Amino acid sequence: MKWVWVFLGVFLSMGTLSWGEMGLEVPEYDGKDRVHVLNAKNYKSIMKKYDVMVIYYHKNVDGNRGAMKQFQIEELALELAAQVLDDLDDEDIGFGLVDEKKGSAVAKKLGLDEVESIYIFADNEIIEYDGELAADTLVEFLYDVIEEPVEIIDNDRELKGFFNNDEVIKLVGYFKNEKSRHFIEYDDAAEEFHPFVKFFATFDPKIAKKLKLKLNEVDFYEPFMEEPDTIPGKPYTEDELVEYIEQHDRPTLRKLEPHSMYEIWEDDIDGEHIVAFAEEDDPDGFEFLEILKEVARENTYNPNLSIIWIDPDDFPLLVPYWEKTFRIDLASPQIGVVDVEDADSVWLEMDDQDDMPTADELEHWIEDVLRNKNLNSLDSLKDHYSLGKLLQN
Amino acid sequence: MKWVWVFLGVFLSMGTLSWGEMGLEVPEYDGKDRVHVLNAKNYKSIMKKYDVMVIYYHKNVDGNRGAMKQFQIEELALELAAQVLDDLDDEDIGFGLVDEKKGSAVAKKLGLDEVESIYIFADNEIIEYDGELAADTLVEFLYDVIEEPVEIIDNDRELKGFFNNDEVIKLVGYFKNEKSRHFIEYDDAAEEFHPFVKFFATFDPKIAKKLKLKLNEVDFYEPFMEEPDTIPGKPYTEDELVEYIEQHDRPTLRKLEPHSMYEIWEDDIDGEHIVAFAEEDDPDGFEFLEILKEVARENTYNPNLSIIWIDPDDFPLLVPYWEKTFRIDLASPQIGVVDVEDADSVWLEMDDQDDMPTADELEHWIEDVLRNKNLNSLDSLKDHYSLGKLLQN
Repeated sequence: MKWVWVFLGVFLSMGTLSWGEMGLEVPEYDGKDRVHVLNAKNYKSIMKKYDVMVIYYHKNVDGNRGAMKQFQIEELALELAAQVLDDLDDEDIGFGLVDEKKGSAVAKKLGLDEVESIYIFADNEIIEYDGELAADTLVEFLYDVIEEPVEIIDNDRELKGFFNNDEVIKLVGYFKNEKSRHFIEYDDAAEEFHPFVKFFATFDPKIAKKLKLKLNEVDFYEPFMEEPDTIPGKPYTEDELVEYIEQHDRPTLRKLEPHSMYEIWEDDIDGEHIVAFAEEDDPDGFEFLEILKEVARENTYNPNLSIIWIDPDDFPLLVPYWEKTFRIDLASPQIGVVDVEDADSVWLEMDDQDDMPTADELEHWIEDVLRNKNLNSLDSLKDHYSLGKLLQN
Repeated sequence: MKWVWVFLGVFLSMGTLSWGEMGLEVPEYDGKDRVHVLNAKNYKSIMKKYDVMVIYYHKNVDGNRGAMKQFQIEELALELAAQVLDDLDDEDIGFGLVDEKKGSAVAKKLGLDEVESIYIFADNEIIEYDGELAADTLVEFLYDVIEEPVEIIDNDRELKGFFNNDEVIKLVGYFKNEKSRHFIEYDDAAEEFHPFVKFFATFDPKIAKKLKLKLNEVDFYEPFMEEPDTIPGKPYTEDELVEYIEQHDRPTLRKLEPHSMYEIWEDDIDGEHIVAFAEEDDPDGFEFLEILKEVARENTYNPNLSIIWIDPDDFPLLVPYWEKTFRIDLASPQIGVVDVEDADSVWLEMDDQDDMPTADELEHWIEDVLRNKNLNSLDSLKDHYSLGKLLQN
């Protein structure tokens, strides 16, 4: 595949600084091959060389010109990621490719089952990455992977930092110290979900008091909720923690993130998603998001409700595609139901952006959506779902 | 340049969804040429076709193989941006190239002066974009460009949204209504700084009261400050507002953003930057950022102090480069002084990440840095600046 490099030698290096200014150079791809092609003979010895191994399990592209080009681009993103991480001091991170056809023996041995996914082998754990295949998103995810699975909260400012990040599923436990048997069970459970679920702990009784935690107790925070749930039955074994988290890992409101976008999209409910678009940095979007959070908090125990919040700022290149596909205007907030099989959708009509629905009205609409279940019956209510009509019900 | 497309036809399309799932397709470049090459003959008629024209004023690359490749990649980023925005309903956004040598006549007529910059012509204003030349960052910036320059705050939730975004320079004014002469002056001033500085207004006396604003009064909010400054001498003309903002447009603490990274980096003070690395989503980083904000608030009127805060999460590909260039570990927060000519730097030694400097200690260090002015004298204090040593002074 060397001939591609001739044209792509400087792939993704687009930053420019004035002459004589330094300190902000975006890396250029240097053309060196760093990504290994893994086969039954070499995979063990190659994987032994690295602390972390990132393996792209890809479709076989032989004889398909379009797929081949696509694959070359993907390979380049991995090469750039490998080059950038080559400079990292602490960890050796290797990259490899396993072809669905030619590498089927390796795939079987390594337990790779979903083609087009990236598997990350780190510390005896296998992490599946089902996000954007872009160098920056993948590299940022890998920094999280190599961090410790449990973050310790030592003081009030760090506690404020803990509360500040409310967009992810997180847990916090209070333990005697790092050697505590119960902390070790907690740490082991953390490894199972790392880095998707964030685990925190404190050994400080004053911090624990502020978190309203008893010794060996763990609280579970759903995204965007104000109050946590205390996991019952302390002290817990690793298995008990794992089971609890698995039963609660689909939040009532969850944010679409580039590093897990496909994973979340594939986790539909009866082939549908309730999707809300809101730009947090915009006052209108912020307002709508506040209403949405209120509804989510009211319905946190409804297992049939999981709203995906998309901030258009995080996916600028998808905005015109969504506007066209869903026939909506993303300049204002939107909420709708999307059929993931054909991208058919119905949207709540919010004509006047100065007069948004109240949390009650929005809840009413969502209840109606859940009751009608499939889009055909929703569709019969017209192309656009009108709030006014709903309120007459 | 057609031959490039053969290999790059699917450039940047790396997202994959399971079979039968729709609604999340990252756009692929379709290979169609949309970016115009502007010359003295065609530029007027081409620019007339669009509401917004994005012009990349680039170096001449004839005879330089490396620069040519680099330029092709940049062109591709622009082509992808043009394609994505082609689907936009509201506005026609055109893209053009002006060659430093071949297009010098056009450059002169359009007033382009900084080579390697992007100039955006919209509503009789010229906006210089000096950020990352990547399709997503540029497209996101263009969405901001086509928004109204003044955002109206109608209710309490929107007011909360206004306060929520404290990372940018923003202004808010209270006016009678949209037709008010004073609002029109304010709106005209907004156009001069749009979209870099955010302008808000309210026509609601209750909201104005919560903002402590009198009629026709405008408050100026520096990033990360708790209290605004009221611009003196209300009511203001456009020129008075413009002058005030120009005198206050270098904040005490500012965040490096991809869309303006080069502009900020080039705005050094005596060839140096005080740079702080802190990951906001990490408790340690959050803690350090809180201390930094405290120092910035104490020193908001010091014209010689402007700290650049970099969240490593925003620049994942640059992290190993910075760690190598500055010889620091970005797993923990860092603060240092960087010479922009040679990227030479000295950093505050924070050995124990559990015991961060207090705001006073950090302020002491920064004062010392400003007093010593150039890195040579700082360097004589050793490779790393030790907090312990400083406190003995």
